[in-house]
Amino acid sequence: MRAAAYAGNGTMSIVDSPESAPDTDEVQIDVAYVGLCGTDLHILHGHMDARVTMPAIIGHEMSGTIAAVGAGVDGWRVGDAVTVMPLAWDGSCPACLEGNEHICQNLDFIGIDSPGALQGRWNVPASTLVRLPDSLDLRVAALAEPVAVAVHDVRRGEVRPGDRVVVLGGGPIGLLIASVARTEGADVRIVELDAGRSEVARGLGFAVIDPREQDQRAVVEQWTGGAGADVVFEVSGAAAAALGATSLAKVRGTIVIVAIHPDPRPLDLQRVFWRELRILGARVYQRQDFERAVDLLEQGAIPHETIITGVEPLTATQVAFEKLQSGGAMKILVDVQAGDRK
Amino acid sequence: MRAAAYAGNGTMSIVDSPESAPDTDEVQIDVAYVGLCGTDLHILHGHMDARVTMPAIIGHEMSGTIAAVGAGVDGWRVGDAVTVMPLAWDGSCPACLEGNEHICQNLDFIGIDSPGALQGRWNVPASTLVRLPDSLDLRVAALAEPVAVAVHDVRRGEVRPGDRVVVLGGGPIGLLIASVARTEGADVRIVELDAGRSEVARGLGFAVIDPREQDQRAVVEQWTGGAGADVVFEVSGAAAAALGATSLAKVRGTIVIVAIHPDPRPLDLQRVFWRELRILGARVYQRQDFERAVDLLEQGAIPHETIITGVEPLTATQVAFEKLQSGGAMKILVDVQAGDRK
Ligand SMILES: [Zn+2]
Ligand SMILES: [Zn+2]
Repeated sequence: MRAAAYAGNGTMSIVDSPESAPDTDEVQIDVAYVGLCGTDLHILHGHMDARVTMPAIIGHEMSGTIAAVGAGVDGWRVGDAVTVMPLAWDGSCPACLEGNEHICQNLDFIGIDSPGALQGRWNVPASTLVRLPDSLDLRVAALAEPVAVAVHDVRRGEVRPGDRVVVLGGGPIGLLIASVARTEGADVRIVELDAGRSEVARGLGFAVIDPREQDQRAVVEQWTGGAGADVVFEVSGAAAAALGATSLAKVRGTIVIVAIHPDPRPLDLQRVFWRELRILGARVYQRQDFERAVDLLEQGAIPHETIITGVEPLTATQVAFEKLQSGGAMKILVDVQAGDRK
Repeated sequence: MRAAAYAGNGTMSIVDSPESAPDTDEVQIDVAYVGLCGTDLHILHGHMDARVTMPAIIGHEMSGTIAAVGAGVDGWRVGDAVTVMPLAWDGSCPACLEGNEHICQNLDFIGIDSPGALQGRWNVPASTLVRLPDSLDLRVAALAEPVAVAVHDVRRGEVRPGDRVVVLGGGPIGLLIASVARTEGADVRIVELDAGRSEVARGLGFAVIDPREQDQRAVVEQWTGGAGADVVFEVSGAAAAALGATSLAKVRGTIVIVAIHPDPRPLDLQRVFWRELRILGARVYQRQDFERAVDLLEQGAIPHETIITGVEPLTATQVAFEKLQSGGAMKILVDVQAGDRK
């Protein structure tokens, strides 16, 4: 079967990969669509060469149908529509023993640390499967993983109906967090510098603050009657956003750190102290987040038409990555079925 | 009556202050002892001139007995031993309306924003009173306020029996937090650079880590079986401590920001994200913290002999401040009764 593999030097190679039967606790999936994200771009740019094994078949946002079922697997049948929660934990580290398997200290992130979904037929542990309703378009279902991230972030931030929420950064994850928070009954503002992204966010009905044109703190204070926001999501990865985040939150408000900040960032700890703020890290998802994500996609609560800005065949995975980083794109899917996969 | 007032230029003046009868909702207290803290030193050094009104009778850690009771006050009698929770809130700001009166957005901190306890007879709202048991030495009871800070910090950090706790900074508040956490059943390590403070901490039975001699992260990892600490208290105010704090906490562990960090501090947000850490600000106290502090002092759970390193008469308040900042001192009390107060 064909697969797309990162081969170093910024290159995705189309390779012929041997097909193998699923192990006893695995299923084999006919992969339908794979979404590309910022982490995949990091891999392509060589930033994670120490972590991946080349040639690396990557891809961890996906949808598909079961092609074969291992002998020891119960509850799944050939033809079932599925997505995969791409986490494998050791079950024995201190984090796992306290019930935080999703951020196991020895986590295997499938699609980074082990082979991913950019291949015609993909074997995964049956324990990673999440059922998709037959009514859900597999293209839309490929968003389940990033939506699960957003659901996890919103749940971690304990967003409640009526909460005033600020999302710093209007990229795909920012828009998904904003959408999920709105579904929870929150009133949402997005802070974004890029004109194109701001227009997209406004098109989805969100008010957008450009901190170069407006004093974001004053805007939030006025909006919240002098209180500050209940929850602030830092999704941008920008140093200025992290520094400003504390000024936007109410007394005992919450700031959720969603973005990756590769370097230490100056933070206003005086404000953290003064207002008894709460800063929470939020990473990946738990099973309930994935299931909720599928529900939200089926309900039409996620603006998938806006998020999915393009679909490319597997043979054009390199093109898909180029479109992703060219700006303007939100989410590019790879159609693994297109062409002569089987 | 005599009072000690900050008069600018690093000077505490002994002044004759007019005595007034308590208002209807107030009591008048014969002040016994007043503890001096770092905030008082900040005032003396002129760092808070924009906030205080000179001549400023400061002092907010105290004990005393009721000398007179306002007409509208129920439940208090002349001679009752009391301490004061020195907070007055407006009851109407967004923080108050959500039940966070202790960090009211317009908080009046009595002893800073309004006259404090360094006077023979002090009028305070009866609502600020906390009852002291007759069996508790008024010298020891003067520690109620800093102990309440520590109780609040430990409660905010949700320290549980068996928790492994790291306290960054072995000054008075660090030692009090360590003592309160130990009372809650935690196993505590203190990180401290100063040899004298380390010796004091060891004398109280705490293991001390000097991060210049040992890799603090490695020590904590070994101690906790590779997990990391349940709760880390940042009490030092040092930039290096804030930066290192995130490396000491377990997956989903807690870092409580107790110290004042006047400038933004570089923080490892990548670690916050990766381990889903929780950073909490903790400021002052709530009534239950004060009541618990008095209980702990009465039970002998607080090493007051070690914390109180000196007592000076009111007329020597300037000397008391000099001793406090000379190094080596933990807590200096002012004996307001000494001399011809009445
Ligand atoms: Zn684990
Ligand atoms: Zn208030």
